Amino acid sequence: MIDFWFAIGSTYTYLSVMRIDELAAGVEVRWRPFDIRHVLIAHDNIPYAGKVEKSAYMWRDLQRWSDAYGLSPRFPAPYPLADSPQANRIAALAAEEGWVEPYVRATYRRWFEDGQCAGEEPNLSASIAEAGQDPARVLAEANSPDGHARLLAVTKRAMALGVFGAPTFAVGGELFWGNDRLEDAIAWAKSGGLASRG
Amino acid sequence: MIDFWFAIGSTYTYLSVMRIDELAAGVEVRWRPFDIRHVLIAHDNIPYAGKVEKSAYMWRDLQRWSDAYGLSPRFPAPYPLADSPQANRIAALAAEEGWVEPYVRATYRRWFEDGQCAGEEPNLSASIAEAGQDPARVLAEANSPDGHARLLAVTKRAMALGVFGAPTFAVGGELFWGNDRLEDAIAWAKSGGLASRG
Repeated sequence: MIDFWFAIGSTYTYLSVMRIDELAAGVEVRWRPFDIRHVLIAHDNIPYAGKVEKSAYMWRDLQRWSDAYGLSPRFPAPYPLADSPQANRIAALAAEEGWVEPYVRATYRRWFEDGQCAGEEPNLSASIAEAGQDPARVLAEANSPDGHARLLAVTKRAMALGVFGAPTFAVGGELFWGNDRLEDAIAWAKSGGLASRG
Repeated sequence: MIDFWFAIGSTYTYLSVMRIDELAAGVEVRWRPFDIRHVLIAHDNIPYAGKVEKSAYMWRDLQRWSDAYGLSPRFPAPYPLADSPQANRIAALAAEEGWVEPYVRATYRRWFEDGQCAGEEPNLSASIAEAGQDPARVLAEANSPDGHARLLAVTKRAMALGVFGAPTFAVGGELFWGNDRLEDAIAWAKSGGLASRG
């Protein structure tokens, strides 16, 4: 079992969203959205804002990984997102209702491949509809007081586990931070350890 | 050719220092120490100070990697170092004079395996002596105005290349940040790309 803690708004999460189903075949994966912005602010740990060199590295690194994975994003994608919490409120509702995967894949595809910001229209309603849901119902529910409380609750659960960034893969008590640790998390879920590299 | 930009004081650099010679066999590696503290302050990017969850993750992650690599550190090692710049001034001198590798390996071994802070006695003189040099001469030279200027000059060179963390492996214009990207840097140096993971 892998808990896939992710947040729409995280760039590297795109690579995991597009890969995890095929890669983790045979291992149960729970998609667990949370509010990364809340966590980063609480930890005073804003990874890219104002950091020119690190941001340039991120886009180049994402392109190299995308090439290696056979993905075709258009970089740079809009970043940061103005309303990632709204996208994550929808994802948290979707996780409860059982349609989180198609929604998240749809919204990332629009964000990274079509240049439409996740968390904003037209991406929002189109991605909800693509997941087979009614946008008006979902937006009303996600933006209600209950919708805000739901995202805060799962975010606090993530923080209690020690999650400080996205994506994070949790296997029992072991955390693996970053898309490039997805393979390690799967190996740990299957065998209780990392592959030896000695 | 790989430029191995590193800074004594970086924890993940331990894993690269202990692995790079064997792993990069057949590829020329230049060991290029710089002052990570200078870079982090300039970029307002202090990665672990005050960050409880991220620090706990770092030590656990270092232990998992060490197990996978067959290394035997004693964790947690003293961190952060009080005088990493002194250690890096010595490394910068050593790089000019041709004894950087044995010095850096010796000082990391004492730091991570014996609990002796790099950049301070008794680690300093013992590691210099293990690299075949006279500690009195080296310390006088590294702490002279020329010694300070030497480290600042190489640090500015690193920053001009876009280096923002340690270790960073530079292959032509491509940067790979982090010990866990060493294999990618070697693949790039050999073939001009990452191994396909599609």
